Amino acid sequence: MINFPKPTVEQFFRTYTITNFAVSSDEKRLVFNANLNGKMNLWAMDLPDTYPYLFAHRDESCNFIKFDPENRYVLAGFDKDGDENYQIYAIPSEGGLPEPLITGVASEKYYFGHLSKDGKRLYYVTSEENPSFLNTHVRELENGGDTLLNVGEVSHTELAAVSENEQASVYLRAFANTYVVGFVKVGEETFNLTPDPEKIHVAYEPVFTDNDTIYFVTDYDSDDLYLAKFDLTSKVFSKVLAIEGEGIQSISWDKGNDVLYLTTVKGVTDVLYRYVISEDKLEKCSLPVDIIEQIHVAKSGTLYILGRSATIPHNIYQSANGLEWKQLTNNRVLGLGQEDMVEPDIVSYTSFDGMEIEALLFKAKPENDNGYTIFWPHGGPQAAERKMFRSMFQCFINRGYTIFAPNFRGSTGYGSAFTKLVEQDWGEGPRLDCVAGIEWLFDNGLTDRDKLFLVGGSYGGYMALLLHGRHPDFFKAVVDIFGPSDLFTFVNSVPPHWKPIMERWLGDPEHDKDRFIKDSPVTYLDGMIKPMLVIQGAKDPRVVKEESDQIVAKLQEMGRNIEYLVLEDEGHGFSKKDNEIKVYSLMLEFLEKHQA
Amino acid sequence: MINFPKPTVEQFFRTYTITNFAVSSDEKRLVFNANLNGKMNLWAMDLPDTYPYLFAHRDESCNFIKFDPENRYVLAGFDKDGDENYQIYAIPSEGGLPEPLITGVASEKYYFGHLSKDGKRLYYVTSEENPSFLNTHVRELENGGDTLLNVGEVSHTELAAVSENEQASVYLRAFANTYVVGFVKVGEETFNLTPDPEKIHVAYEPVFTDNDTIYFVTDYDSDDLYLAKFDLTSKVFSKVLAIEGEGIQSISWDKGNDVLYLTTVKGVTDVLYRYVISEDKLEKCSLPVDIIEQIHVAKSGTLYILGRSATIPHNIYQSANGLEWKQLTNNRVLGLGQEDMVEPDIVSYTSFDGMEIEALLFKAKPENDNGYTIFWPHGGPQAAERKMFRSMFQCFINRGYTIFAPNFRGSTGYGSAFTKLVEQDWGEGPRLDCVAGIEWLFDNGLTDRDKLFLVGGSYGGYMALLLHGRHPDFFKAVVDIFGPSDLFTFVNSVPPHWKPIMERWLGDPEHDKDRFIKDSPVTYLDGMIKPMLVIQGAKDPRVVKEESDQIVAKLQEMGRNIEYLVLEDEGHGFSKKDNEIKVYSLMLEFLEKHQA
Repeated sequence: MINFPKPTVEQFFRTYTITNFAVSSDEKRLVFNANLNGKMNLWAMDLPDTYPYLFAHRDESCNFIKFDPENRYVLAGFDKDGDENYQIYAIPSEGGLPEPLITGVASEKYYFGHLSKDGKRLYYVTSEENPSFLNTHVRELENGGDTLLNVGEVSHTELAAVSENEQASVYLRAFANTYVVGFVKVGEETFNLTPDPEKIHVAYEPVFTDNDTIYFVTDYDSDDLYLAKFDLTSKVFSKVLAIEGEGIQSISWDKGNDVLYLTTVKGVTDVLYRYVISEDKLEKCSLPVDIIEQIHVAKSGTLYILGRSATIPHNIYQSANGLEWKQLTNNRVLGLGQEDMVEPDIVSYTSFDGMEIEALLFKAKPENDNGYTIFWPHGGPQAAERKMFRSMFQCFINRGYTIFAPNFRGSTGYGSAFTKLVEQDWGEGPRLDCVAGIEWLFDNGLTDRDKLFLVGGSYGGYMALLLHGRHPDFFKAVVDIFGPSDLFTFVNSVPPHWKPIMERWLGDPEHDKDRFIKDSPVTYLDGMIKPMLVIQGAKDPRVVKEESDQIVAKLQEMGRNIEYLVLEDEGHGFSKKDNEIKVYSLMLEFLEKHQA
Repeated sequence: MINFPKPTVEQFFRTYTITNFAVSSDEKRLVFNANLNGKMNLWAMDLPDTYPYLFAHRDESCNFIKFDPENRYVLAGFDKDGDENYQIYAIPSEGGLPEPLITGVASEKYYFGHLSKDGKRLYYVTSEENPSFLNTHVRELENGGDTLLNVGEVSHTELAAVSENEQASVYLRAFANTYVVGFVKVGEETFNLTPDPEKIHVAYEPVFTDNDTIYFVTDYDSDDLYLAKFDLTSKVFSKVLAIEGEGIQSISWDKGNDVLYLTTVKGVTDVLYRYVISEDKLEKCSLPVDIIEQIHVAKSGTLYILGRSATIPHNIYQSANGLEWKQLTNNRVLGLGQEDMVEPDIVSYTSFDGMEIEALLFKAKPENDNGYTIFWPHGGPQAAERKMFRSMFQCFINRGYTIFAPNFRGSTGYGSAFTKLVEQDWGEGPRLDCVAGIEWLFDNGLTDRDKLFLVGGSYGGYMALLLHGRHPDFFKAVVDIFGPSDLFTFVNSVPPHWKPIMERWLGDPEHDKDRFIKDSPVTYLDGMIKPMLVIQGAKDPRVVKEESDQIVAKLQEMGRNIEYLVLEDEGHGFSKKDNEIKVYSLMLEFLEKHQA
């Protein structure tokens, strides 16, 4: 009766992000971190009521939320303007303003490690006095007594689990994303979780099911992540369970039912399983979303997950049995249903060397289609584009763009060997996978040769710069969001605790000088002839602002058509609603301007 | 175990305002207007689930929300930056961006009047072509056909009710807040709701219970508002029900049960009654709050109210029977319970001429008490300070201030004659009531003679200016929030549709020249020797910015200690969270600075 226009871009920007949550031990309160009111803050709901109220106000990103088991306080970690220097704060049990608990100068980090069963001893990991390798302490919350438990050595070393009797602690030492060894420390003795720490493998998600039994995930001697166990009495490592074609990603223990909930990665979606330890029985659960961001099992056995799908924004769900789910939050795109958005097709194509590459193809609906495609190399690079809601994607698709996002070599979800293929090869194999993906789009008539845009962030921004410099003819225009532009400067500007992993991941600037030159976007400035928009957070600790400053300055000197947006109060991402809207509006405007 | 500091001012500022709501006819959706995300927007909950999601985004104040009976759309009125020029927008049934429906140039107003039972005809009132008296139209929503139904004459004339068969319409014509006549129009014939429209009285809240019966509220021949009826067949007016010592404020009809829900004003609180028409039976309901801002009765008979108490912010409640209530929203002060806030004592004192004046006394808790009192003359003036949550009050009280708010003559809630006492006497009787209240504070040892501050907004700002000019010795410092400073300029600067009521309310600048001089704050510039903070919204249509500009300029010229804050995007109030925080922080800082 009243005719309404089609949804507009602004509607997509009104969705918010929920990053993490926690549930009190009595399950009467659920606290979650979201930019519901424009900036990141903690909100609570007093279950079973789901109306959220502001629980803690700080307007900053939060990396963990932990309830005192006795509900006397809540702990949370906050950084400053996206600088990722998280420090630990306490919040009164009824909510309020976060009070500094374990904090220091702005450049230091204090990570939550473990809270004792009585809520009196807080284990934490800090960059203080050991910025590259990190130290572990325990703080007595009643009297402030602080004890140094472990001095990080060799590489980045984090506390990952503590036994209930607090006699044993599991540490993870990372040499790369694909090389993380675990060891358990009992007093001054240490034992490796896996038989040979010199072999390249990962071990993570350790869970104590009793004081002597540690379950964890590893790909030791395998291409897929599987469930393993370490018996602290016998010091025996054993493989427990592998799931064909799926990598186990997380373990959550349901003590009352002697069950482990396992989430696995199956290509671009997640799967949830219920594993009854005593019966060695594995059951598949149902899931209300394709991607699980966080899972929590309450003492009662009730499951809580935070997740999303391509057409469902971040929401929190609850289930008594892993079969039926109740949606607790109701985060949605303003005025749009799932049917108004686009689910990706999962396609695959053969790359230059015969390798199969999987990709997400979000086809614009015919009534919206503007004929243009956006090529999106994901960030990471040891990550993947998956069926996860991105307001940016759905907004651009609604505007008529088709989006193509390949999981080039180096992506996760396709086995450990595949993930390692980007290591010390940032610019060749993955780039050629991208090129093959572009040719596939052309060859299959999905994209006209003169209607392709290139947009990427982080490693995807690096890849956008590199593709721009080396294959400019493919693209009408390029958007680089905080992408490294020069591997020589990048390798030296990452946070101190990243440095130990840089060599395996990227290489050494002296040994690999030729490769660094070959794979640095700045080497190809001459080729960067298309209009380009560069976006950077001033506080970004991962890809520092100089990475964007330098390439923008050089290209502007050369008279190229470059736009540059710096967000003063953001890091490696856009957590504040106003900034997000500014960025995506500018990107849309940029793309539309360069369609002609 | 962890010691937390006392609540701080910031926590009080994190409460939001809910101004109005609507419920769909099937009661599956409730939409409310709130600055939950920092600015005013519409939020929805899909009942019985209470998790709210953004329903319409416009970042502006909303004066009504109306569901299409068939759920094809929702109507709402929005202004611009607080200018109160509300215009009518339509929102898709699933939410989205409000689309202009009945709108015009920025200076025009379009008020919702009535929506036909089939949702196809929208009755509205507009300033277009008749800015002082207003015209009424009906718009055919299917084809846009628009018919002028009534040309406002004599004074501000608004459509207030339409019969179900749309044959009869009730209009209210306002000559003053205390003089509003109602008439019903059937074709070209008009009939007065009350026997003699020349007698000074009010008639409002007309409700058709069938096509020929109109219930309404009036004080015709009475000092209190009572329930009356007009029979359109016989043209007979009759008094139906009066409640001793309480004025009936609103009427809501429960058709299914043949019941009228009546809210009454009993001094500083509200009361809710259920009146069974056929049995002439009145039952008192229970209430979860002291003040009802809005009430809605669904077809099912379920009640919905929006309300607040001194220590409970705006919330929405639901009840099947008017006895037990379920709280649907969970708006609260960050980290504080009701027990952390202060309920006012209701006191009374004898004024200069023997009249009893009721007042609210919010005593700072002993552990917070800073020894200072804030004297708060309320706005209106034909309004009252009541047991209603104000974050500003609770925040200042928490900081240690005691607040005293008298319902001086002219206030509502104490009978019509009392309310009329401020008419054509803005500066004498009410001012002397304030002076008597101040002396009462001193005499009763509640306030030290050198520890009194003066803060007021709107008419209360006017009173603050006047008291400052005439009784400066009482106060350490003064805060004026958008108060008229000069009655001569004020009377000419109000919106056109206010002008017809100005003479009875305030007087005539020529006839009453001497009184206008005597009662204008600018007459007493010499007396205004105390530090003063003046706060003004640039878009304020009621008390225009020049009212503050002129007195600030004059006092600054005279070398007085004056601070001036202008909010560019606000009108007569502070709807945006950032502005609210700025204003109250500055006020607190100002008061603290001048304690010495």
